[in-house]
Amino acid sequence: MTDAVTVYLEDLSVGQSLERAFTATNAAIRAFADVSEDHNPVHVDEAYAATTPFKGRIAHGALLNAWISATIAGGLPGRGSIYVSQSLTFKRAVKIDDVVTISLTVTDIQPKTGVVTLTTVASVGGKTYAKGVAEVIAPRKPV
Amino acid sequence: MTDAVTVYLEDLSVGQSLERAFTATNAAIRAFADVSEDHNPVHVDEAYAATTPFKGRIAHGALLNAWISATIAGGLPGRGSIYVSQSLTFKRAVKIDDVVTISLTVTDIQPKTGVVTLTTVASVGGKTYAKGVAEVIAPRKPV
Repeated sequence: MTDAVTVYLEDLSVGQSLERAFTATNAAIRAFADVSEDHNPVHVDEAYAATTPFKGRIAHGALLNAWISATIAGGLPGRGSIYVSQSLTFKRAVKIDDVVTISLTVTDIQPKTGVVTLTTVASVGGKTYAKGVAEVIAPRKPV
Repeated sequence: MTDAVTVYLEDLSVGQSLERAFTATNAAIRAFADVSEDHNPVHVDEAYAATTPFKGRIAHGALLNAWISATIAGGLPGRGSIYVSQSLTFKRAVKIDDVVTISLTVTDIQPKTGVVTLTTVASVGGKTYAKGVAEVIAPRKPV
């Protein structure tokens, strides 16, 4: 496991942030189509996708959510965190080989419940492609 | 393509619904971990997962979002629909081999913009495991 980082509830602070980059390779999009069973031709059929407003194949929006989840699990709060909710609005479509930066920023911490609120932004080349809010329960420091 | 169904904006109505079932197989969870790069041990490490409140490995919450997206693309509104937003709150954890039913129901249609609002529910054995709201742009009937 390389994703074994944990930032415990007691060590989190508002404003803390984490960025991680992911590439929307052809292989990633095809694998995501298989595992999600979402073979929408805009994702997997170049000839069809060329006829759409996107002018080519695009990544699944849900793949951005998957990468947000990976970034949460990867370090903010990391291993042991429990996903409570996610909202996400899609602004632009991710194309093949786009490098997507996922940025998380802590905006609220509820010490009693352990619920941490994060803004979640997916961007490409500095432009926002999707944004939303996640709530996660952060693990507490072992006593 | 088996997912080539389209329900055009003009043929959608409030209350219309679609259900589709997906199984959280070990293979699906491992494939999702690879494509999302989310190797949180609660998803992939049985020994670690046994020590958590879940008492075993669970599916990624983002996999439920992927299946919601697949159900939208698969028939409501189907091929050609554009994902605008998704919110999802996780209530219970999906375990290995759980059969997850995704239920979509149209709650609002905006004829001018083409934006259709759907409730999105993931359930196992009749119990709600996750629920939220999706907005999608439905394709219009070719003139």
